[in-house]
Amino acid sequence: MPKTPRLTPLVASLPTTVPFVGPEAQERASGRKFRARIGANESSFGPSPAVIAAMNAAAPGMWMYCDPDNYDLKAALAAFLRVNIGNVVVGEGIDGLLNLVVRMYVAPGETVVTSLGAYPTFNFHVAGFGGRLVTVPFENDRENLDGLLAAVKRENAPLVYLSNPDNPMGTWWEASEIVRFIEALPETTMLILDEAYGETGPASAQPALDVARPNVITMRTFSKAYGLAGIRCGYAIGEAKVIGEVEKVRNHYGVSRMAQIAGLAALADQAYLKEVVAKVAAGRERIARIARENGLSPIRSATNFVTIDCGGDGAFALKIMQGLLSRDVFVRKPMAPKLDRCIRVSVGLDHELTIFEEELPGVLAAARGN
Amino acid sequence: MPKTPRLTPLVASLPTTVPFVGPEAQERASGRKFRARIGANESSFGPSPAVIAAMNAAAPGMWMYCDPDNYDLKAALAAFLRVNIGNVVVGEGIDGLLNLVVRMYVAPGETVVTSLGAYPTFNFHVAGFGGRLVTVPFENDRENLDGLLAAVKRENAPLVYLSNPDNPMGTWWEASEIVRFIEALPETTMLILDEAYGETGPASAQPALDVARPNVITMRTFSKAYGLAGIRCGYAIGEAKVIGEVEKVRNHYGVSRMAQIAGLAALADQAYLKEVVAKVAAGRERIARIARENGLSPIRSATNFVTIDCGGDGAFALKIMQGLLSRDVFVRKPMAPKLDRCIRVSVGLDHELTIFEEELPGVLAAARGN
Repeated sequence: MPKTPRLTPLVASLPTTVPFVGPEAQERASGRKFRARIGANESSFGPSPAVIAAMNAAAPGMWMYCDPDNYDLKAALAAFLRVNIGNVVVGEGIDGLLNLVVRMYVAPGETVVTSLGAYPTFNFHVAGFGGRLVTVPFENDRENLDGLLAAVKRENAPLVYLSNPDNPMGTWWEASEIVRFIEALPETTMLILDEAYGETGPASAQPALDVARPNVITMRTFSKAYGLAGIRCGYAIGEAKVIGEVEKVRNHYGVSRMAQIAGLAALADQAYLKEVVAKVAAGRERIARIARENGLSPIRSATNFVTIDCGGDGAFALKIMQGLLSRDVFVRKPMAPKLDRCIRVSVGLDHELTIFEEELPGVLAAARGN
Repeated sequence: MPKTPRLTPLVASLPTTVPFVGPEAQERASGRKFRARIGANESSFGPSPAVIAAMNAAAPGMWMYCDPDNYDLKAALAAFLRVNIGNVVVGEGIDGLLNLVVRMYVAPGETVVTSLGAYPTFNFHVAGFGGRLVTVPFENDRENLDGLLAAVKRENAPLVYLSNPDNPMGTWWEASEIVRFIEALPETTMLILDEAYGETGPASAQPALDVARPNVITMRTFSKAYGLAGIRCGYAIGEAKVIGEVEKVRNHYGVSRMAQIAGLAALADQAYLKEVVAKVAAGRERIARIARENGLSPIRSATNFVTIDCGGDGAFALKIMQGLLSRDVFVRKPMAPKLDRCIRVSVGLDHELTIFEEELPGVLAAARGN
């Protein structure tokens, strides 16, 4: 056997699985385009017209490297959030920031706590840095705060992940409960509080930022309500010393110039954000109504999607998802035990929800008939 | 002392230095804008009009996540390069790909070989993953192939970095010499061959891609001749198994949808690339002429910049760089011993080189007068 360069034992041990299969890959496999793209919790309403204009104006200048400090965007975020610029770091979406924070706190063999069925990309990064993942099941379709806390303490975990509102169920805890959780955490455990869906949830679910606290890092993104999933721009807020540690390991030229400009323009157009949030709320209502009209149980959501309890087991919900996919309606579903009885439908444009409404009865009949 | 979350010992040990200070940070410090931005080896000629049109058309669709497979761009690159799609991986610029490949091969404490004064971001990633860097001085302003080879063997290094044409000197080796170097490498050492400047150099400096070879990974980018530094899009070509390993650790949503679309359009417009390459060659000639007219010695370059031997020591060249900066002309300089006698000037637009031409005599007089 010929000799080859030696991978690190850790990388050599990693599986080849990837966190997500994109809708584009599914389209390539089927040879057909989706008629409704309501599976990835994107914002079908798109970015603000002001953001599109800013991107168009910026395009000819893409020969220039991005500002490695992301200064203008960071300064605007800091002002908007009423924190110091040293409390903010911008990354290639929350995914990119998760990579960095996992790398900061997880040495090989260390234990990390998350909810069973929560964000797979976080788990991907934990595995990638050799962490051992301990998962806590959702309880009543919400992340189990007490269970997470108990696991953190039992495992002496350096890192715990919590999303609020959460994915894939769309549920949430009020800020007071999150604060109680944070205050009960060991001082030596870092919490990643993923607020990707913060803008579409009730304000009462978002705890005040406390950048004096050294063991919470809050992550937000332009991918969801701001309609910029494709541009890759997220940010994290935390104690200045913690943010300084992120600076030591981040890819300083990772966030594109276009992303910085788009993020800045998006943040400046809060009126548009408000419009989108209202449309998202209306879309959630419509999805819930469609679900109920078909005998299914929508779960109350604070996000830009509605997770629907299909009333059967995982196999039944899987058939429904596959039925929708076969009719070129892109949806996804939770896969963890108990959660897997559901499908997950993103708020799309009206015509997309109409396609969902038209196709669902036939899909259900077929699934029930099998 | 209050307890805080425990960083990994590796991250805790890292310095807070960053690889580069961007021109934007320098502008913020001085309170003035540069009149000539000719320091970061960007392509002032900008991206192709077809690329700008493609980005403008794509902007409203930025609500969609990027295809995590980068499929369309990878397929186009594979066809263009006459390799299989499994031999290509796209990343957030070469910087992002360097992070991944260093992570793959460098376990803490392992030794990595590069040239003294070569790309700082590579060194940043090696430090970030706990590698020990062994550097080999340039020889006659070129990377020292025999010296690198000897260091690799002496140190039993799992990874070695070589750029061709190189930065910061702009010099190059012919393909036959690079092939000789590759064939002499231990089978257990991976070579990162950084061809960021490949398009502006002679074709004879670019060895044929050999994707059967498991110990070379070649990196190229849309940041230089294609004029897309700000969009963050680079790619690596290698043996399918090696590329498969990159898949295990990369951020699957790291390359923005805009970057994928821009890269695809850029690759399709080879006529524009050819025009730019001709302009770059003309610009190099002009910079060299300006240097000679001022009694300095330009080094022959295969890149989009010219490194100029200022004929004195590092302190003298530093004064010249600082003099140019103080006159709002953004240039950089090598900092390694011997190389530091030089300044480095990127091919800018004609009016930028005119500003350089106008300011250089005064700067030199002041530097010599001190």
